Amino acid sequence: MINVLIYNEFVHEQTEERVRKVYPEGIHGCIKSFLEGEDDISVSTVTLDNVNDITDEVLDKTDVIIWWGHMAHNRVPDEVAQRVQAAVLKGMGAIFLHSGHHSKPFRLLMGTSCNLSWREDGDFERVWVAKPTHPIARGLKKYIFSEHEETYAEPFDVPEPDVTVFIGGFEGGEVFRSGLCYRRGAGKIFYFQPGHETFPIYYNPDVQTVIKNAVHWAKPDCRMEKLDAPNVKKPGFDGE
Amino acid sequence: MINVLIYNEFVHEQTEERVRKVYPEGIHGCIKSFLEGEDDISVSTVTLDNVNDITDEVLDKTDVIIWWGHMAHNRVPDEVAQRVQAAVLKGMGAIFLHSGHHSKPFRLLMGTSCNLSWREDGDFERVWVAKPTHPIARGLKKYIFSEHEETYAEPFDVPEPDVTVFIGGFEGGEVFRSGLCYRRGAGKIFYFQPGHETFPIYYNPDVQTVIKNAVHWAKPDCRMEKLDAPNVKKPGFDGE
Amino acid sequence: MINVLIYNEFVHEQTEERVRKVYPEGIHGCIKSFLEGEDDISVSTVTLDNVNDITDEVLDKTDVIIWWGHMAHNRVPDEVAQRVQAAVLKGMGAIFLHSGHHSKPFRLLMGTSCNLSWREDGDFERVWVAKPTHPIARGLKKYIFSEHEETYAEPFDVPEPDVTVFIGGFEGGEVFRSGLCYRRGAGKIFYFQPGHETFPIYYNPDVQTVIKNAVHWAKPDCRMEKLDAPNVKKPGFDGE
Amino acid sequence: MINVLIYNEFVHEQTEERVRKVYPEGIHGCIKSFLEGEDDISVSTVTLDNVNDITDEVLDKTDVIIWWGHMAHNRVPDEVAQRVQAAVLKGMGAIFLHSGHHSKPFRLLMGTSCNLSWREDGDFERVWVAKPTHPIARGLKKYIFSEHEETYAEPFDVPEPDVTVFIGGFEGGEVFRSGLCYRRGAGKIFYFQPGHETFPIYYNPDVQTVIKNAVHWAKPDCRMEKLDAPNVKKPGFDGE
Repeated sequence: MINVLIYNEFVHEQTEERVRKVYPEGIHGCIKSFLEGEDDISVSTVTLDNVNDITDEVLDKTDVIIWWGHMAHNRVPDEVAQRVQAAVLKGMGAIFLHSGHHSKPFRLLMGTSCNLSWREDGDFERVWVAKPTHPIARGLKKYIFSEHEETYAEPFDVPEPDVTVFIGGFEGGEVFRSGLCYRRGAGKIFYFQPGHETFPIYYNPDVQTVIKNAVHWAKPDCRMEKLDAPNVKKPGFDGE
Repeated sequence: MINVLIYNEFVHEQTEERVRKVYPEGIHGCIKSFLEGEDDISVSTVTLDNVNDITDEVLDKTDVIIWWGHMAHNRVPDEVAQRVQAAVLKGMGAIFLHSGHHSKPFRLLMGTSCNLSWREDGDFERVWVAKPTHPIARGLKKYIFSEHEETYAEPFDVPEPDVTVFIGGFEGGEVFRSGLCYRRGAGKIFYFQPGHETFPIYYNPDVQTVIKNAVHWAKPDCRMEKLDAPNVKKPGFDGE
Repeated sequence: MINVLIYNEFVHEQTEERVRKVYPEGIHGCIKSFLEGEDDISVSTVTLDNVNDITDEVLDKTDVIIWWGHMAHNRVPDEVAQRVQAAVLKGMGAIFLHSGHHSKPFRLLMGTSCNLSWREDGDFERVWVAKPTHPIARGLKKYIFSEHEETYAEPFDVPEPDVTVFIGGFEGGEVFRSGLCYRRGAGKIFYFQPGHETFPIYYNPDVQTVIKNAVHWAKPDCRMEKLDAPNVKKPGFDGE
Repeated sequence: MINVLIYNEFVHEQTEERVRKVYPEGIHGCIKSFLEGEDDISVSTVTLDNVNDITDEVLDKTDVIIWWGHMAHNRVPDEVAQRVQAAVLKGMGAIFLHSGHHSKPFRLLMGTSCNLSWREDGDFERVWVAKPTHPIARGLKKYIFSEHEETYAEPFDVPEPDVTVFIGGFEGGEVFRSGLCYRRGAGKIFYFQPGHETFPIYYNPDVQTVIKNAVHWAKPDCRMEKLDAPNVKKPGFDGE
């Protein structure tokens, strides 16, 4: 069983009627709902209101965290972000969605500004599959189509990825590296651009396929008990 | 002085009136012309007719080779392609333009099929600058605009690049990694997508800027005399 | 079931008594023997004598190829090497052992000279685990110890790897990147340095663990039917 | 002129006689001294006592920062570390020496724990040149020899580097990736392992060569005025 923890800041849904209409159970509720259709995935959720519940104990039992945040990144305590970072380095998978590019844990893990260009005109988007043989792209056609999406545009200030799985092309002409894989420490990280709060992106079966695939891809190969810099002895000849 | 050698297969220009009208001196003639405007660049050219002139001696004196080919890739002898590969590994820079993605030396250097999807509808293209602080992007605005271009589309089967400098977005909606940097051995390699033979792409000042920048970027840091796998002695304590 | 095909050139074992004593069934026989102890692995073997049996049909049914060659690289036909390259690009895994760094398919896939420095003094070696959380390192201690090994030394002219899993340190002081992961096309590639023919390296349980792990790691995520560069139509809005 | 700013925490030299004997002017004094022998390098220094002098204004005028710290990493204010990180992302070069692997700005830029294994037995070390054609290795023989050095050992928890320039091999048998290049944002970063405070490593002409080369390599290609995530307009056809 893959234990998934979904963090959604859950602010837009409570403060904006148009967002609540799209996601009456919150974005986390929507994602939880389709992930729970998988036999091997178990889902918990947490929101900004109880963000301090993201403790080391919880993270130790989490195989993959999914993170959606936007307007309240700064209200996530640094300690929580650092715990998430450490958990990833110890092996937990992490999937950052849409405006999660500016979340504290993603920025900590990338080491860059994670800035991008953006505009909100409700453009349609094709998320092109640039690496169709990658496990995260399994089951997709040539692209994922969204009728309306916030436009994200290059330059995207992230380290060069291990794999560029998706590249988005927007109605207005912009392009954006929409699906990027990283390894950091023992953990695997996937950034996925689709998911503006005002559009029903997470109901799109192809988007759901990507997130399910990404959960399977990001689950730990190996967990480290702790991060340390040991003082070692001169090696012998027996492997230790 | 940077010694540039331009290889252009020079077949379309001789067999198709519409191409000859665009490039009466050949694509190599056009590129030579704008590169020679640079104080520190000296240019030679070679075409398919005299492709065997690309000898080891010539390559040893070449700092950067620029390669344009399309319909006659297979008429380039394997030996010539292998010489170019070896010269790059020893430090020569290489710039592969447009359909040069399927040239023998590029495929040898990449190790992959270098396949891509394509259609010829004369779409406009914006070549977006994904890494504006890269030396190859110096002097550009946000994108390079071409009124008509052959459409190249992902997936592009190349190894993950060191840097994705440009990503193209086409009128029909396709996206393509249009400017990619690699290091192989001692050499630097740049692939640049624009340049279909039927359109006057290489007269575009922004495209010229990229090629000039790429020549400066790709020039050798260091040249190796030969490629070898030496039988060495047990090391002492003096650096040798 | 993971279908493994072991290629061993099988020349040293037939021409040198000291090698035959170490590997009376050939290096391929030794590797086959310990791989067959795994429930989910099925093994075939092929040697230089019947290298043309490595057909496209055979490769299509092979999940992971393991390649050991040394003195007879040049007697492997180019066509066979190209078939192996194409099969990897279509998704087959490939493990290149020891002097396989200079084999034709490895060089085709890397695009570089794959040169290294070497000496044969029977040094002991510690193959250090640089990435202990990588699946290929599962079950190992800090290093693998070999009492005698041919010394391989940097510089190793390969593209920067996706992951440096192992780094060897030799008795005489040399260092070498001994375990390197690559993705090329749809396939995964692992290079592993241990295995000089005159020493019983492949009887070492830790070395066997690595090769078993690597088989599991390299098995295809996805197979492509063919490598092609399709002429496509302007995209619609339905994924195709 | 390349403006170099050397940060040295300068604590060991003031609290330990044996360190003061090696570096009577501080480690920064030693590095400043040999860098000032270069015609095109101008050097300033700063220590922990005046670490808040590392302001945005100072960093804007700094082309390359060199960072040595060990026992007082935590006394560097977070704000200073974040300023250094931001300056690198905007284009400033950064060279982190020895125990600077655990400094705040290096960890911020890497996003990983930057942990390693270590022991202090005064082993000799050979820092092998793994990429002899890299500009940072110019002028070196096969390895740099240090008679005594603190032993650093893999695993080293950093992201996979762009280039592995050096790999160290220690008397006791350990290995360590001793020279690593990264690009983050617009900036170039070089980590270089040699330089324990109790040994006269920075008087070694080969080590000095590396640091001089690294300064030239890391100097900015391009400076960004600010890091921002602009709200953009739908693109036209003129590059903006």
